[in-house]
Order: sequence, then structure tokens, then C-alpha cells
Amino acid sequence: MLIRRIGAPLVFTAALLATSCSPSEAPDTRAAEAAAIQTLDEQWSATAARNDLDGTVAFYASDAVLLGPNAPIARDAKAIREAWAGMLGPNSAVSWKVTKVEVAKSGELGYLYGTYSLAIKDPKAPVNDTGKMLEVWKKQADGKWKCIVDTFNSDLPVPAPPPAGKK
Amino acid sequence: MLIRRIGAPLVFTAALLATSCSPSEAPDTRAAEAAAIQTLDEQWSATAARNDLDGTVAFYASDAVLLGPNAPIARDAKAIREAWAGMLGPNSAVSWKVTKVEVAKSGELGYLYGTYSLAIKDPKAPVNDTGKMLEVWKKQADGKWKCIVDTFNSDLPVPAPPPAGKK
Repeated sequence: MLIRRIGAPLVFTAALLATSCSPSEAPDTRAAEAAAIQTLDEQWSATAARNDLDGTVAFYASDAVLLGPNAPIARDAKAIREAWAGMLGPNSAVSWKVTKVEVAKSGELGYLYGTYSLAIKDPKAPVNDTGKMLEVWKKQADGKWKCIVDTFNSDLPVPAPPPAGKK
Repeated sequence: MLIRRIGAPLVFTAALLATSCSPSEAPDTRAAEAAAIQTLDEQWSATAARNDLDGTVAFYASDAVLLGPNAPIARDAKAIREAWAGMLGPNSAVSWKVTKVEVAKSGELGYLYGTYSLAIKDPKAPVNDTGKMLEVWKKQADGKWKCIVDTFNSDLPVPAPPPAGKK
């Protein structure tokens, strides 16, 4: 009789553990979060393509770093803005495209990589670059995804230095 | 009397839920996993510093990609090995150092960034480079951390192209 009386709570316990407490049963939000990051990254590229400097830097977290080529690490918002100011402008055309996105099981940290193109119509120093980028994204305290580490580099060969004696 | 009889299982249930089932109570392994990745990365740098090509490429997952500068994405083990073969050798001195490591709450995905130096004593094309790198690490099915995305770029200015008419 005792067994029958405590049977219901134990079954309830087992059901609760099986449905909501097993780590393997935690909801897998990775695909949805990866899609969210990819959508944001597409919006980011479109924003940069419009040469919208304020809009472009708004995709970074407040503590983000930019590891841009041929420059030291940009460790704060001011340095990141300056780096972007050198790439955006009326003569610039920049855009990029995601190749792969992946998010951690816990759903708050992810990365993506892809390819970019950058053209600057500058008569003195024209740029026609293609390359690849790697971004790390982190969900912030307010639930919004922001880029926390951003880097890119060119696919093109290094320009040959001037021959000796012709500098 | 019924209440007293089912009291113990209910208390047991409540205790079990409180100690092992609340997501906020999951063990936080981030610091330990971050330290594990940093130790591996230090071993990786030491391995590359010995110009050990087999040892160096062994730090990559089988599906890793290398986004090296001035080259397209190295999308498989063969291409990654070729890229490293071009950097390592008896005249090479490469090493790097971690600046920051961060791991997801779920403990299977992380990243690090830091700084590197690369010198190659080649009389025709000597290299004296310093720069920064960003690596994404993922815990593999066997529990071992491997690098899944690796990229780096130089801090140094792009060499100026030869002046027009002096090519």
C-alpha cells in the first residue's frame, strides 16, 4: 500500500528528470542562432556597402577588437571606427558573404567566416582587393548578438618591393 | 499520514532538481577549458618554433580551414600542410603568444587571439614579420581540443608598389 501511495510522485520525478533535466534533452538552438548571426552579418555587409560608418560600427560589442591587416590590433571603439573610416567613403565599394556559421551548444558564442571584396576608386592608391574574414560573435546581456572579434586578410599576393637601387 | 509517507520522495525530488537540473547550476568549466586551450596553443607555438611540420599540422581538426594572408582559403589538410611547409624550415623562426582566450558556457567551442612573429632568413626574400592571429577551437568527439579555423595577418604596412616606369 505504501508503494502504491508513493508510486505517483516517483513516476512524476522520473518523468520530470527525463523530459527537462537530462543535458542531452536541452533544446538545441544552434541552427536558429546560427541563422540569426548570418542574417545580422548580411545586414552588416549591406550597411557597409552603403558606406554607413555609424551603422557599420554598431555591429560591434563595446569591448570588441578588430585585427585588421597591416595595422596593429584595434582594441577599442575609437580605433575600430578609425579603421572603418579608412575603408568607407563615396569612392568605396565593400561587401562580404558568409561561407560557414557555427554556434556553441550553449547558444551564446559563435563564429563565421566568409569572403569579402573591397574596391576604392582612389587615383593615387586604388584598391581592388578580395579576401576572407573571420568573425566571433557573442550574445550580449540584452540578448542581442554582437561581433566581439573581427579579422580579415587579402587573397592577393603581396606587392613585390621595389627592386634594389630603384627606390 | 499520506502526506508524511510521500514527503520524503518529494523532498528528494526537489533537492535533485535544485542541485542538478537547474541550467544556472550547471558546472561552469569555462576557466578550466580556456586554460586547456591556452596550454595547447603554447605547445603548438613551441612545436612550430622547432620547425616540426608534422607536429604543427596535428593541432588542426580533420575539417579545419586556414585563412592565411595573400592566399585563398586552405580548405583541407593538404592545403594547410602546404601553407605551413612554406613557413617552416631550417631558416625559419616562428612563434606566437595568446592575448585572450574565451570558451562558450557549454565548454566545447572557444577562440583565442594573440600576436606572432615570423622570421625567415632567405637571401632572396627575407621575412621579418610581426602580426596577430585568431583561432577557433572545438572539442572533438574524443574529447580533445583541436583548432578548426585559423587565421593571421601582418601588423606591418603593405610594401609600396614599384613606382610607375621603374618596374
